[in-house]
Amino acid sequence: MSSSRGTGGRLVELTTDECWTLLGESLVGRVAWSGHGGPTVLPVNFVATDEKIVFRTSPYSAPARECDDLPVAFEVDEFDSTTRSGWSVLARGTARLVYDGAHVPAAATDLDVWADGWRALHIIIEPRELTGRRLLPG
Amino acid sequence: MSSSRGTGGRLVELTTDECWTLLGESLVGRVAWSGHGGPTVLPVNFVATDEKIVFRTSPYSAPARECDDLPVAFEVDEFDSTTRSGWSVLARGTARLVYDGAHVPAAATDLDVWADGWRALHIIIEPRELTGRRLLPG
Repeated sequence: MSSSRGTGGRLVELTTDECWTLLGESLVGRVAWSGHGGPTVLPVNFVATDEKIVFRTSPYSAPARECDDLPVAFEVDEFDSTTRSGWSVLARGTARLVYDGAHVPAAATDLDVWADGWRALHIIIEPRELTGRRLLPG
Repeated sequence: MSSSRGTGGRLVELTTDECWTLLGESLVGRVAWSGHGGPTVLPVNFVATDEKIVFRTSPYSAPARECDDLPVAFEVDEFDSTTRSGWSVLARGTARLVYDGAHVPAAATDLDVWADGWRALHIIIEPRELTGRRLLPG
């Protein structure tokens, strides 16, 4: 039988500190922006440092062409299908394109990218809003 | 030393069939939309059936208030930090809010939601664009 009433786990808000800790422990996040053809989401390797989220891309990539100085969202999550629990963190802010490595936080200059390719451009997001939720096992 | 040149794995485009297979095997995806305050991303349990992506929410939730008949993105991915490889699928289309269960695909009426809460509303996305990439180990 279909039921609109869930019997699942409780959602608990995370503190800002918890959000930064989880961002700091993650290696892959998802940047979302409103491109020419509507919203788009792209997974990227990133570093969270100095209250900034930093990832690397090519100057010719879609985020480089479509995100400059515009509002973006950055999401990280982890869920376990066995316990049906997990967490998610959402940062929202403006994307800043940084071509000069001297303006990239030290911890992000060695940012390890799993995919091959030339990535001379850093994109930095300073969240103006940072929220997260933990889904407890039901 | 910092290097803008990656030495990582190769990215390979997935076929539409492969994208649907991976969507069908996944339990958690992320819906992204352009809300009042810019782009937003929310992880949700979903079902992929009949070339549609279906998830359930409350009629008072942010996606219910901000997505109706508007372009959205839906993303699923899986990465392994040991092999530094994985895949991602991105669907883009218009979100349709369905209040009448009779108009929900059969496989989605029993959609299992891990989080507690009242979710009388189904949101259906029929992708007008479906793309995916596999990141091979480097």
